[in-house]
Amino acid sequence: MLGTCIENVRSMMPLVHNITNYVTVNDVANVLLACGGSPIMSDEPEEVEDITSICGGLNINIGTLNKRSIEAMFVAGRKANELNHRLLLDPVGAGASALRTNTAINLVEQLRFDVIRGNISEIKTLAFGSGSTRGVDADIADAITEENLDAGVEFIKDFAKKSSSVIAITGAIDLVSDGDKCYVIRNGRPEMGKITGTGCQLSAMITAFIVANPENKCEAVAAAVCTMGVAGEVAWSRMQEGDGNATYRNRIIDAIYSIDKDILDKGANYEIR
Amino acid sequence: MLGTCIENVRSMMPLVHNITNYVTVNDVANVLLACGGSPIMSDEPEEVEDITSICGGLNINIGTLNKRSIEAMFVAGRKANELNHRLLLDPVGAGASALRTNTAINLVEQLRFDVIRGNISEIKTLAFGSGSTRGVDADIADAITEENLDAGVEFIKDFAKKSSSVIAITGAIDLVSDGDKCYVIRNGRPEMGKITGTGCQLSAMITAFIVANPENKCEAVAAAVCTMGVAGEVAWSRMQEGDGNATYRNRIIDAIYSIDKDILDKGANYEIR
Amino acid sequence: MLGTCIENVRSMMPLVHNITNYVTVNDVANVLLACGGSPIMSDEPEEVEDITSICGGLNINIGTLNKRSIEAMFVAGRKANELNHRLLLDPVGAGASALRTNTAINLVEQLRFDVIRGNISEIKTLAFGSGSTRGVDADIADAITEENLDAGVEFIKDFAKKSSSVIAITGAIDLVSDGDKCYVIRNGRPEMGKITGTGCQLSAMITAFIVANPENKCEAVAAAVCTMGVAGEVAWSRMQEGDGNATYRNRIIDAIYSIDKDILDKGANYEIR
Repeated sequence: MLGTCIENVRSMMPLVHNITNYVTVNDVANVLLACGGSPIMSDEPEEVEDITSICGGLNINIGTLNKRSIEAMFVAGRKANELNHRLLLDPVGAGASALRTNTAINLVEQLRFDVIRGNISEIKTLAFGSGSTRGVDADIADAITEENLDAGVEFIKDFAKKSSSVIAITGAIDLVSDGDKCYVIRNGRPEMGKITGTGCQLSAMITAFIVANPENKCEAVAAAVCTMGVAGEVAWSRMQEGDGNATYRNRIIDAIYSIDKDILDKGANYEIR
Repeated sequence: MLGTCIENVRSMMPLVHNITNYVTVNDVANVLLACGGSPIMSDEPEEVEDITSICGGLNINIGTLNKRSIEAMFVAGRKANELNHRLLLDPVGAGASALRTNTAINLVEQLRFDVIRGNISEIKTLAFGSGSTRGVDADIADAITEENLDAGVEFIKDFAKKSSSVIAITGAIDLVSDGDKCYVIRNGRPEMGKITGTGCQLSAMITAFIVANPENKCEAVAAAVCTMGVAGEVAWSRMQEGDGNATYRNRIIDAIYSIDKDILDKGANYEIR
Repeated sequence: MLGTCIENVRSMMPLVHNITNYVTVNDVANVLLACGGSPIMSDEPEEVEDITSICGGLNINIGTLNKRSIEAMFVAGRKANELNHRLLLDPVGAGASALRTNTAINLVEQLRFDVIRGNISEIKTLAFGSGSTRGVDADIADAITEENLDAGVEFIKDFAKKSSSVIAITGAIDLVSDGDKCYVIRNGRPEMGKITGTGCQLSAMITAFIVANPENKCEAVAAAVCTMGVAGEVAWSRMQEGDGNATYRNRIIDAIYSIDKDILDKGANYEIR
C-alpha cells in the first residue's frame, strides 16, 4: 500500500542533497521537512561530492542552471551513482533552450537515474531529443487527457524501458511507470498550476520517498505523486474567500506535513495499467 | 480604463523572462502567476537568448547582481530589443554601490527600455549619474510628498522624455509618466514597506502588463501600479490580530490573484497631470 | 533588560548586509524587517566593500557557499573589521564538507567576529577543527540537554574566550556566552526544527541587535535568541487544526513583527550562569 511508503519516510528521515533552482528552493526545503525528510542544498563543484556522500539521495533540478551548477550536477551525480545512492532528475524547461535540452540529455546519458520526473513536454524532449515547451510549463497540445491516455501509457512504458528509470509525467493526469506497469493517478487540483514550484517540490519529495523505500521504487514514486495530489485537494478544501495562490501554496505544504498513512491510502486515486 | 489592462493579461497569459535577484524571486514568480502571467527565470549568458526569444517580455532586476548575471542582462536585453520584445529595468539599489550605479547606467545607455521602475533615489541616481540611497530603500529626504509633488511631476516627465521610456517612481505617492502625461497614484499602504520585494513583484507584474497591452504602455504601467496598491489595501483589510508582515505578504499576492477589472477600476485612485 | 534591546533595534532601524544562502534568504529579509532592521543582500566581490560600508553590520552565512561568495565573505569581512562594523558568522553545515569546515575556520582565523552562532555540531567543528554534523542539522549525540548542561556551559565559555567572540549555540536549550557569563535560554518549540531557516533568520536578527546595542553585545545576542524563541511560542499558540510548517513559518515572522519590549521581557525564559 502507498501509505506505508510515507510512513517509511517519516521513520527514516532521509537526508536529501538538492542541486536545484533558486526560484523554488525554499519551498523544496520546507516540503522535504513536511514529508519527514531533511534537506541540504549545495551546488559548488568543490564540495558536492562531500555533501552527496552523507545523503541518501540526490535531487538534480535544472531550473536555473548555470555553468557552475551544471558541473556540480555531473560531479555529484557520478558520486551518487558510485555510492549507489538514489538519484532523480527534474529536467525543468528542457526544450526551452538548447542548453537545458542538451544538459538534460547529457545527464541522462552519463548517469543512472532512478527516477526522471517532468511535465509531458519535458519528458518528450528527453525521449525524442527535442521538443516544444512553453517556458517551464507543458505545451497544451502535449497534455495527457482521458482521450489520448492509451497512447500516453504506451509512451511512458517505452521510455521507462529505454531509459531504465522510473518515469513520472505529471499534469492533470499523472503517470508513473517502471516500463512494466503504469500508475494512472487522478489526484490534485488544476489550481496547483497557479503556484510556482509544485513540480520542484514533488521531485524533492520523490527523492526522499525512494531513499526510504529502495525495494519498491515505482510504488514509492506513485506514493509521492499521490501525496502531492491529495495535499492539493486537502489544502483546497481549507481555502476561504479571498484566499489565492500564496495561501494555497502554504496550505499544500501544511497538508503534506499532516498527511499520514491513512489519509494517503484513503485519498489516493489511481489505477494500475 | 485601467481594468481592461488586467483583463488583457489574464486572457493573453504572457510569458515573462526574469533576470532577477534571489531574495524575492519566489514571490516574483507567484505574483506573475497571480496576475495571469507566466514566469521563467534564467541568468546563464549561454541560454538567455533562447529563453528570452520564447517570451514576450524581459524583466531585468539588478537586486543581487554578479558578473555572470550582468553579462546575461546585456546579452538578453540586446536580444529582446532585436526581437522588439518588451523590456523593463528595475535598478535595485542603484546609488548603493559603484557596480550597481554603473551597471544601471550602462544598461540604460546600451538598451532601449520600455519601462524603468524604481524608488525615487534609484531613479534620481539614473537621472543624475549618482545618488544617495539607503541600501535598497529610498532616502527619506528624496521622498515625493504632497508638498513637493509639482517638482516630482516635472522631474519624472523630464526623465521620461530624456530616456524615451515610461518611468515609474513608486513610494507613498506613485508617479508614472511617458514624458507627456503623468499618473499620480495614491493607492497602497505604508506597511507594504515592511515586506521585502513588493517593488520587485511590481516590476515583474508591469512587464506582464506591457506585454499584454503593447499599444497603451503608459496606461498599462499605471494599471499594474494601481493593481499592486489596491491589492495592498484589500490585503490589509483582511489582516487579523497577531498578523504581521509574513501574512501580509501572502495576502497581497492572494489579493492580486483575485483582482478583476471591476475591483481595479473601482479601487484605482489616481489623477492625470 | 532584554526588552530594551529590541526597542533599540526598532528605533535605530539598522541596515544589515547579508552574504547568505539562497535557500532561506527571503525569510531572512522579512525577519530583519519584522524586528525593525533593514536588509540588503550582495555577494559579488566587486561590490561588497561598497555595500558593507553603508551598513552597520555584516551577517556571513555559509549555507550555499561557492567560490565567488567565499571571496565576497573575506573581502566584505575585512572591510567590516576595518570600519569597526559589527560582524557575525553563521557556519551553516560546518563539518558536512571539507570546503565548509575550512572556510568557516579560515574566516574565524582571519576576521574578528563579534558573534558566531550555530548549532552545537557546527560550533564543535569550529572549536575542534573537525566535527560530525548531520547535513545542516546538529548531530543528536551532540545535543545540549539538562543532563550535560554543565559541560555545555563550560565548553561555550572556553570557546568564547578562545575566539574572543560572543558565541551562541542554539538547540532545545540555547546558550549565549561572552566567555565570562553564560545565558541559558529555554524558549522556543521543538516544531521550529521542521521549518527551514530559523537558524539563518536568527543570525540575521542577532546582527541587527548587536548593531543597535553595541555596548551590550552579549545581552543583545541573548535578547535576539529570546525574541526568536518567544516568537516560536506565540506563533505556536495561534496554530489551528490543519496548520503545518508553512503556516508556522509565517506565524513566527508575524510574531517577531508584533513583539515589543513587554512581550519579550515577560516571555524570555533564561538564567545566567
